[in-house]
Amino acid sequence: MGPVLADSVRLTDDGVEILDRRVFPAERVWVHCASVEDVAKAIEDMVTQSSGPYFAALWGMVLAAREARSLAAEDARAHLAKAGERLIATRRTNNHLRKAVAAALSGVDGQTGDDLAAAVLAGARAGDERYRSRSAALGRHTAELLPDKATVLTHCWADLYLVELVRAAAGKDLAFVCTETRPYLQGARLTAETLAEMGVDTTVITDGMGAAVLSSGRVDALVTAADRVTMDGHVVNKIGTLGLAVAAHAFDVPFHAMVQAPDRLAPTAADVPIEYRDGTEVLNRPGIRGLYPAFDITPPRFVTTVVTDRGPFSPRQLGSYYEEIP
Amino acid sequence: MGPVLADSVRLTDDGVEILDRRVFPAERVWVHCASVEDVAKAIEDMVTQSSGPYFAALWGMVLAAREARSLAAEDARAHLAKAGERLIATRRTNNHLRKAVAAALSGVDGQTGDDLAAAVLAGARAGDERYRSRSAALGRHTAELLPDKATVLTHCWADLYLVELVRAAAGKDLAFVCTETRPYLQGARLTAETLAEMGVDTTVITDGMGAAVLSSGRVDALVTAADRVTMDGHVVNKIGTLGLAVAAHAFDVPFHAMVQAPDRLAPTAADVPIEYRDGTEVLNRPGIRGLYPAFDITPPRFVTTVVTDRGPFSPRQLGSYYEEIP
Repeated sequence: MGPVLADSVRLTDDGVEILDRRVFPAERVWVHCASVEDVAKAIEDMVTQSSGPYFAALWGMVLAAREARSLAAEDARAHLAKAGERLIATRRTNNHLRKAVAAALSGVDGQTGDDLAAAVLAGARAGDERYRSRSAALGRHTAELLPDKATVLTHCWADLYLVELVRAAAGKDLAFVCTETRPYLQGARLTAETLAEMGVDTTVITDGMGAAVLSSGRVDALVTAADRVTMDGHVVNKIGTLGLAVAAHAFDVPFHAMVQAPDRLAPTAADVPIEYRDGTEVLNRPGIRGLYPAFDITPPRFVTTVVTDRGPFSPRQLGSYYEEIP
Repeated sequence: MGPVLADSVRLTDDGVEILDRRVFPAERVWVHCASVEDVAKAIEDMVTQSSGPYFAALWGMVLAAREARSLAAEDARAHLAKAGERLIATRRTNNHLRKAVAAALSGVDGQTGDDLAAAVLAGARAGDERYRSRSAALGRHTAELLPDKATVLTHCWADLYLVELVRAAAGKDLAFVCTETRPYLQGARLTAETLAEMGVDTTVITDGMGAAVLSSGRVDALVTAADRVTMDGHVVNKIGTLGLAVAAHAFDVPFHAMVQAPDRLAPTAADVPIEYRDGTEVLNRPGIRGLYPAFDITPPRFVTTVVTDRGPFSPRQLGSYYEEIP
């Protein structure tokens, strides 16, 4: 049995069940989605985040294929196309959704009825398997960078990368320190709970304590996921990563950023627009402004390693990730 | 009329009234302390903080002197000594408490009854006056370091130093960015509210956003108070200061730390014990530990200026602060 967040979007005979991350871990509520439209609404409503929308889109496409079982070939194809567009439109900046829909449709070739449903199910399962095996590779490569009994500082929620890192490092007796990650507290809620479920020694600090912990000598590595890594080694991740990376660099603690692959569509930081969310999510009081950049960008001089599914790379040599394609 | 937090610990005929900073500004509740023990408890319970405990200890000693009015000289002296020890023990990292007790006792010389109470009151009033005039000098010296229309990043709550800085810089049209300062949110609550009360342009960020704001070029200076500065230039202040100072240094933003005077009793950082508060104040959930170091220590290499009541000093030349004594 893995931690619940590693398997929090599930296909069942009558729909898709999605664990509500908005209230986890205080409550463990599963949202039942009976149709692809229900799945789309759940993604829009932020019931799940991080890798969650990817899995939700995979299984949402299976529901669409089930809905199309009674349709003729042309109508079935149109129904699936519309379902895919609907899912992709739920979060326009999330590239994962496009990949999930493509995976689910990869084996569709004019089938109808049960054959169509089986083809989409096979595509979705392959997409699920691929994401998990790449995450597992990433976890193994990251674990290899950590000494036995290492204490790891992490920020926000690295999702399956974190789960696979802990699994791969099972013999190493790691301990984790997690920043709480204001304003949504993904660290205090998702990361800390998942680590505790996996039996890992877990300490939560506020976001401002990272530098003190890094300067104390008790942390062996800073490890975070990255939302994106540019080809010239800039790490784009949850706001707060930059400050931790700068402090880690100042106090000689290595920073390993985990990403499946660097982004060929982003040669450098200027190619990554930063999402500014509503400042009232930080502070909502008359006469005072709240500011909420959702991500920050860590320059390569503060990054030790970019760990990918193909192994660790220097942030200055990411081009070789693609040169290694057989 | 200044901002309410500039006068938030008040001596009355029947006790000491302390504005409850834990709930300010959502609520404006004054805690009534009828005895020196009530005052000590209020300080321990964090009803007030920053300079608040200094003023609370001054007026708490006045309550102790009132309690001792009916005692003979020897017993009265013992009662005051015990009261002073009790107050000093409430927050061991806070040097102000020792000074407040010494100020209140400075004119005590074997008096009893009303004479004793009057002597302690005079000492406490002199301590109050001295603290305010030194803070005003500190504010003026800090204002001189800031360009017109500067945007200043600050952390936690610099209390009277901040108020006096804003007053001294009235013509400069400063803007402030405040970290919210978890877990107690002194920045979002005390600093932001006080700046807004004083008509200053004020933006609040989460503690993890400081490095991104510093790297953006929009901040001209990082300015914080210091709970203590060691003679070799280590700045002891609210947890989170270190991370901001390291980021300011990395992105070429000056860091000015405000303190009345460097601490001759602390030659270096090893002489300053760091207070660890209960980790459940950060996170209280089974199976997960919260960690709460209340302060961090910023080494002099990350400090541009230590501003004192006698003007600005390099963190590496603080010895000259005391050489200038006439």
